[in-house]
Amino acid sequence: MKAFVMQGIGSTALVEKDRPKPGPTDAILSPTVGLICTSDCHTVHGAIGDRDNLTLGHEVVGVVDEVGESVSDFEPGDRVAVGAITPDWNSIAAQDGHPSQSNGPLGGWKFANVKDGTFAEVVHVNDADGNLARIPDDLTDHEAVYTADMLSTGFAAAENADIPMGGTVAVFAQGPVGLMATKGAALQGAGEIIAVETVDQRQELAREYGADHVVDFQETDPVEEILALTDDSGVDAAIEALGSDETFQDCIEVVKPGGTVSNVGYHGEGEFRHIPREEWGVGMSEIEIVTDLCPGGRLRMRRLLRMLENDLVDPTKMTTHEFEFEDIETAFEMMDEKADGIIKPLIHFERTG
Amino acid sequence: MKAFVMQGIGSTALVEKDRPKPGPTDAILSPTVGLICTSDCHTVHGAIGDRDNLTLGHEVVGVVDEVGESVSDFEPGDRVAVGAITPDWNSIAAQDGHPSQSNGPLGGWKFANVKDGTFAEVVHVNDADGNLARIPDDLTDHEAVYTADMLSTGFAAAENADIPMGGTVAVFAQGPVGLMATKGAALQGAGEIIAVETVDQRQELAREYGADHVVDFQETDPVEEILALTDDSGVDAAIEALGSDETFQDCIEVVKPGGTVSNVGYHGEGEFRHIPREEWGVGMSEIEIVTDLCPGGRLRMRRLLRMLENDLVDPTKMTTHEFEFEDIETAFEMMDEKADGIIKPLIHFERTG
Amino acid sequence: MKAFVMQGIGSTALVEKDRPKPGPTDAILSPTVGLICTSDCHTVHGAIGDRDNLTLGHEVVGVVDEVGESVSDFEPGDRVAVGAITPDWNSIAAQDGHPSQSNGPLGGWKFANVKDGTFAEVVHVNDADGNLARIPDDLTDHEAVYTADMLSTGFAAAENADIPMGGTVAVFAQGPVGLMATKGAALQGAGEIIAVETVDQRQELAREYGADHVVDFQETDPVEEILALTDDSGVDAAIEALGSDETFQDCIEVVKPGGTVSNVGYHGEGEFRHIPREEWGVGMSEIEIVTDLCPGGRLRMRRLLRMLENDLVDPTKMTTHEFEFEDIETAFEMMDEKADGIIKPLIHFERTG
Amino acid sequence: MKAFVMQGIGSTALVEKDRPKPGPTDAILSPTVGLICTSDCHTVHGAIGDRDNLTLGHEVVGVVDEVGESVSDFEPGDRVAVGAITPDWNSIAAQDGHPSQSNGPLGGWKFANVKDGTFAEVVHVNDADGNLARIPDDLTDHEAVYTADMLSTGFAAAENADIPMGGTVAVFAQGPVGLMATKGAALQGAGEIIAVETVDQRQELAREYGADHVVDFQETDPVEEILALTDDSGVDAAIEALGSDETFQDCIEVVKPGGTVSNVGYHGEGEFRHIPREEWGVGMSEIEIVTDLCPGGRLRMRRLLRMLENDLVDPTKMTTHEFEFEDIETAFEMMDEKADGIIKPLIHFERTG
Repeated sequence: MKAFVMQGIGSTALVEKDRPKPGPTDAILSPTVGLICTSDCHTVHGAIGDRDNLTLGHEVVGVVDEVGESVSDFEPGDRVAVGAITPDWNSIAAQDGHPSQSNGPLGGWKFANVKDGTFAEVVHVNDADGNLARIPDDLTDHEAVYTADMLSTGFAAAENADIPMGGTVAVFAQGPVGLMATKGAALQGAGEIIAVETVDQRQELAREYGADHVVDFQETDPVEEILALTDDSGVDAAIEALGSDETFQDCIEVVKPGGTVSNVGYHGEGEFRHIPREEWGVGMSEIEIVTDLCPGGRLRMRRLLRMLENDLVDPTKMTTHEFEFEDIETAFEMMDEKADGIIKPLIHFERTG
Repeated sequence: MKAFVMQGIGSTALVEKDRPKPGPTDAILSPTVGLICTSDCHTVHGAIGDRDNLTLGHEVVGVVDEVGESVSDFEPGDRVAVGAITPDWNSIAAQDGHPSQSNGPLGGWKFANVKDGTFAEVVHVNDADGNLARIPDDLTDHEAVYTADMLSTGFAAAENADIPMGGTVAVFAQGPVGLMATKGAALQGAGEIIAVETVDQRQELAREYGADHVVDFQETDPVEEILALTDDSGVDAAIEALGSDETFQDCIEVVKPGGTVSNVGYHGEGEFRHIPREEWGVGMSEIEIVTDLCPGGRLRMRRLLRMLENDLVDPTKMTTHEFEFEDIETAFEMMDEKADGIIKPLIHFERTG
Repeated sequence: MKAFVMQGIGSTALVEKDRPKPGPTDAILSPTVGLICTSDCHTVHGAIGDRDNLTLGHEVVGVVDEVGESVSDFEPGDRVAVGAITPDWNSIAAQDGHPSQSNGPLGGWKFANVKDGTFAEVVHVNDADGNLARIPDDLTDHEAVYTADMLSTGFAAAENADIPMGGTVAVFAQGPVGLMATKGAALQGAGEIIAVETVDQRQELAREYGADHVVDFQETDPVEEILALTDDSGVDAAIEALGSDETFQDCIEVVKPGGTVSNVGYHGEGEFRHIPREEWGVGMSEIEIVTDLCPGGRLRMRRLLRMLENDLVDPTKMTTHEFEFEDIETAFEMMDEKADGIIKPLIHFERTG
Repeated sequence: MKAFVMQGIGSTALVEKDRPKPGPTDAILSPTVGLICTSDCHTVHGAIGDRDNLTLGHEVVGVVDEVGESVSDFEPGDRVAVGAITPDWNSIAAQDGHPSQSNGPLGGWKFANVKDGTFAEVVHVNDADGNLARIPDDLTDHEAVYTADMLSTGFAAAENADIPMGGTVAVFAQGPVGLMATKGAALQGAGEIIAVETVDQRQELAREYGADHVVDFQETDPVEEILALTDDSGVDAAIEALGSDETFQDCIEVVKPGGTVSNVGYHGEGEFRHIPREEWGVGMSEIEIVTDLCPGGRLRMRRLLRMLENDLVDPTKMTTHEFEFEDIETAFEMMDEKADGIIKPLIHFERTG
């Protein structure tokens, strides 16, 4: 089978690989569509270290090809979604309410990290009963594939932000995760959403997804602007959806005493993130800083698919480009360079089954 | 000044009363518009015991006429909203996170309960700084008056229901509180909302406010129907917005293990509410039964007003009738009989100031 | 192998049974000691329906005899504890934070309910990696066996009661679960614990485990007494550890507005539990009624074992009687009749391995 | 009256001042005993800026001398405790669950910050009904005075740490707040408590208050040692009770994925606190960093006093020295230099009333 792999830092290729086999509780999928994520680019640039011939990708939907002997709820032919994160559900961390951290920090993140990812003609999924969810007939693959990461991560940013009904929220960066955090804040009852973004098309999408104000950080100081918009009292919650030290600091500076900074940005560089001591109330202003890794699992997928079914969100607006799987290298390069206003590129797999 | 009062059980009248005086922390309002609540009718029928010459009403907005010497944030001329519930903010219960229960069960409920209510030409408000909120210029009085009770109570029903993003919710009864609970569930990210109601116009409003299904309890058994709609697994949360034993039992029967029954219905009759033992998992299925009394206070009002400003909800659709204050007795009788498809009657006060 | 079974309602016997075999993720234990639970008696009396030749018991510790091929963290010879409840960790309910409800109401309760229990010479445990925990060397089997149910259930009653630091708690009934709820309340920082009990020895143990007051319901009305002890304001939390309608009602009557009723009693009889409407604040006094089924799983067991290791609780004080496994029928009868002041009878298994 | 004041940065004096007068809701106390806090020393060294003739101190108990006309629950002669933090209970922040942040960051902190503190012959208390609590007869003033700050802050550190029953906790620094955090962790059901401290007497007290291990950071690397003690999995919660960047970083390094860092240290210096990026899971390991300022208020005081009454903690072990009020300058200097193994110095006021 063909797979799009990382061949050492900085290098990718479309290669032939052996088809994976399922263990007793696993499944093998044949993908229909996938999405490229900026974190795939980070990985190739070495953010999580070197990898040799590791298949990339973690956002995909497809059809079940084969299941292990102990899988009870899925069978070949089922059209399914799978989370970017596929936890070990009986691990200590999962029992503790943190499945994405199963068996070590970020340990639920298996695709394109500790095992082959989803940019291949067939894909291995651990714990099929725990990690797959059937796609309802009235949803397209295109819609459903957004549940894998963008919806789950973006919405988690908003859920963790502990937004009071009618509260105020600032969302830093309106990439696809930030856009879904903005939509998530709207779906959590936020009363006023301030999006920070400079790219025109993303500003527009932010408004469509529920932002009441858009602050262009190229034109104004976002901290000053957000404080001005809130009568200098600060927002109830600030969401970091970029992964930079600067926006992280901004979050602490714009949040009110007792507020929440919800981080979902992947902080790929630098030794430290910096908490501005005074704005943090010298450690006593009751600000909470929370973090998350994309929630996965059958229940999460099912709930997100239900939201799509009832038209609570249309993530396909973020799909700016489409490619065949054989052209994935081009797609990947464009994503890496953020060329041509790309937000999310959709990859079509040719069904071989 | 004129006031619409209860004169013993079953009897009301529009009478002359003395103008109230503010204590050091109080304010005096001159109402602009008000709403009649079904609980006003309950009160007149004796639900909270006899009252002699007590002014009715608890939903009002108006203009500040006079403030006590210690009031720092409001002054005559301010256009303000006030909650139906006006807590004592330094009470033990408020310090414990339950301001509506300040100084005894339901103790934050003062209007038309332990002191004169809001159907009068001037209204006394305790703790003005704690309980008033300025109405933004771009909101009408008509919009703003819904924050007093309908939005606050209905949304609280949804907030307390602990609805997971994409979760399923059943809302029993689509009176104005139930309708706002439906809208509140949508604003909490519910993935599927099932409204139970038989009156046509209310069914329609339920759909407009976010219900994905409407179950007519006259035509089908709501418990069976809701279980069928959820593949027999039950809903994540059930909201009781009627106050009857039957719907309360239904809530327990339709909620899944680990789910939440959120009660905001006012249970006016009977010695007991009945928990069906087996459906309650013999006391071990991790169902939670939570209750609430309308949250009040300046912060709550402010947040609800912000939601109106950003067009997150339009409660004025529920206003089916309008009356001048001098015709309030007619309005009250119609509300009592639920005549002419009445949902909420808006009362206009003539500004005398 | 020998097993102590239920042979239809009202009948038990010590019989020969086939040794169970492990599936890929399971383990087979050889018990060392076990405890009899009052719920075993309920089961034999038909509380969960008829059972034919079902092995009884759910509280046991032992030594691993055999493991399935996919078990990675345990091997024969390991001395282990196992919870009374052994969830399916990848089920929807477990993913939702309710593992004890996996695959249906109370679905994590497998021993002596949907499969053979623990009163046998060898015992089958599903999902060994998820449900077993190694017993530290410095703990005796006698100490460790209390983690299976008594500690886990009793402590859960206190955890769910949401007791504020320094808050007041009433614990209804001081059987072994109630005693551990009392101890659990002390370990949650309760400021004042009121135990309700009439049996002398249990009253004494309640005091040893942390009760500041003991109310004898034979001598005084417990509701009046508890209200008197709290200046008529009621307790922050009330724990129901008996399973009767009367004590359930008492809990609602003694809890303050905004307080919590935490139920762990198994309610075996009657069509309904009754909520007194007025004391419930006509559905608006912000009382929460929560329920639980004994939490299980490797992490829970590990934490409870750690508490024993650091001498936070000595549950062995509750062991009033000891028996060899061959005399289990006698033990069972005494437990059923609560003869001779029995609280918990310890069963010693002869190691056959 | 005499008052011990700050006269510009670095300078203190015992001076004569005018007796304060109560507003309508205030009280005037005549202190009996007080405690000096290290934060008083910080203040004099300029940590919160310059102050001219500001009375120092925030830990005191005393007798009510005089009350304002609107005070309803206290009268002259009442023996009372008052929190170090005296919130405005009707403020927006208090309504939002953060009374210590009322009217701005740390705004509930009034004593020796924005108004005269407690080291004076008479003391002014705002909102007497909201902020005072009667001291039970069976408690000494010496016991009760610890509720003002040490118990409230130390216990809050443990409450915020979200310690699971039987979980593991590391407490960095065993000054009086750290010691009470250690005791608080024990009273929250921690299964294993690791205290970090180098001073002998404080190590001993840590053990008495519940530490299972004491790590001496002069003899070993505390991060390595704590990881070793937890099989390299890290603690469920880490408490920062010092206010240094180094221990703050240590907290993040020793906490497991999904764990909580609970800060109560007052971070008096430096532009930033540093979050080590990798140990923080690049922003995705679900670590929470929470902070608090000493909770105050009548309910909090009452609950802490109840814990003293029922002998849940004996804070007087921390009193290493005692002084008359006239010798407070000596006491203050010793505290500033941490001379003679001082932990907490108790100040006796001569009753003049």
